Amino acid sequence: MVSDSSAVGEQGREIPDATVARLPLYHRALISLHRSGASTVSSEELATAAGVNAAKVRKDLSYFGSYGTRGVGYDVGQLLEEIRNDLGLQHPRNCIVVGTGNLGAALLSFGGFKDRGFAVVAAVDVDPARVGTTIGGIRVGHQDDLAGLVEANDVAIGLLTTPPVAAQQVADELVAAGVRSILNFAPTVVEAPEDVVVRHVDLASELEILAFHEGRREPIAPAS
Amino acid sequence: MVSDSSAVGEQGREIPDATVARLPLYHRALISLHRSGASTVSSEELATAAGVNAAKVRKDLSYFGSYGTRGVGYDVGQLLEEIRNDLGLQHPRNCIVVGTGNLGAALLSFGGFKDRGFAVVAAVDVDPARVGTTIGGIRVGHQDDLAGLVEANDVAIGLLTTPPVAAQQVADELVAAGVRSILNFAPTVVEAPEDVVVRHVDLASELEILAFHEGRREPIAPAS
Repeated sequence: MVSDSSAVGEQGREIPDATVARLPLYHRALISLHRSGASTVSSEELATAAGVNAAKVRKDLSYFGSYGTRGVGYDVGQLLEEIRNDLGLQHPRNCIVVGTGNLGAALLSFGGFKDRGFAVVAAVDVDPARVGTTIGGIRVGHQDDLAGLVEANDVAIGLLTTPPVAAQQVADELVAAGVRSILNFAPTVVEAPEDVVVRHVDLASELEILAFHEGRREPIAPAS
Repeated sequence: MVSDSSAVGEQGREIPDATVARLPLYHRALISLHRSGASTVSSEELATAAGVNAAKVRKDLSYFGSYGTRGVGYDVGQLLEEIRNDLGLQHPRNCIVVGTGNLGAALLSFGGFKDRGFAVVAAVDVDPARVGTTIGGIRVGHQDDLAGLVEANDVAIGLLTTPPVAAQQVADELVAAGVRSILNFAPTVVEAPEDVVVRHVDLASELEILAFHEGRREPIAPAS
């Protein structure tokens, strides 16, 4: 994944990117616990959810001023609220999908965003066959109307699901329209000004990491 | 992302997960350079592609016995071959999609895998309306036939795109069928034996990380 700029937490300490990356994992675990009616959670349970040890969990949460009770753990409801605040989820964040091919359509229909505080509220495409259709309850607009839709819908996050050749131009248009957070699904790097955060979901890279480990399980080839 | 087990490289040194994660980024950059006809590449260029500094690039590549020439850099063709070997991509790796909703269909149609050495060769679903249809040139089979399709197609990687409630059972079935690499797209953790590598693409988590940085740009709320 592209590395994000680090952030400053309580007492002015810089928050490591790895800590930020674990926040959503704690969030997901806490949502599940909250739904099941659990009132407390130990750092060990959160550690399992995030794939780290319990001491790391406690350190992560301390960056945000969250401290558990020795022998008891954390209050689920309170920690969930604190993490939602840390993640800036006090209010829902609106997203626009740019590019409504299979992947864009998948994002428009994906049910897993709303309970995490995100709403996909708009979509655009350049293909006249797709403009005017409705996917996941959202009418697909034309890419020429991107800026207007971003403003009208108070869009904070752009979901970039165009072919790679179009990705940079679309990123530029999103930034020009005022969007400062981009999730890039195209298999290419996009550049953006320093105050814009771009994260990259590169599916092929994920597969390659799997292949790397698969290759390690096989008999070792002779050194070249 | 779920942390992978570390791997052992040249001279028996352990390869950090972060290094493994950057290999696909170097790979992608080298493919692009190779296509454009470039014969050499500097560590600085690769550093830009991977979001790290040039010294880190050189260290990463040294784990795999790849060394550049001072003042010149690396031979593109040779490094590309070495990285493909490191990634275990000497031969294509076959994938199966389990769950052919929007996201699964997107993976079946996604063109970006083949040039990275992956082939989606099979798909299954439980929905009778989808079984027997063809998506991206692949006929969708029934999930009951998962084991047979895995064997017949020499499948190495399972792409898990079911609803979250079904994800663990499907993971178990993939493992029982002999698949030892899983890319999990469901917004839930799946467990697998130690010799199975599971990577997780959790789109909601990616959005939350974006929201985290977005929240840091806003005026700071009063401390609670």
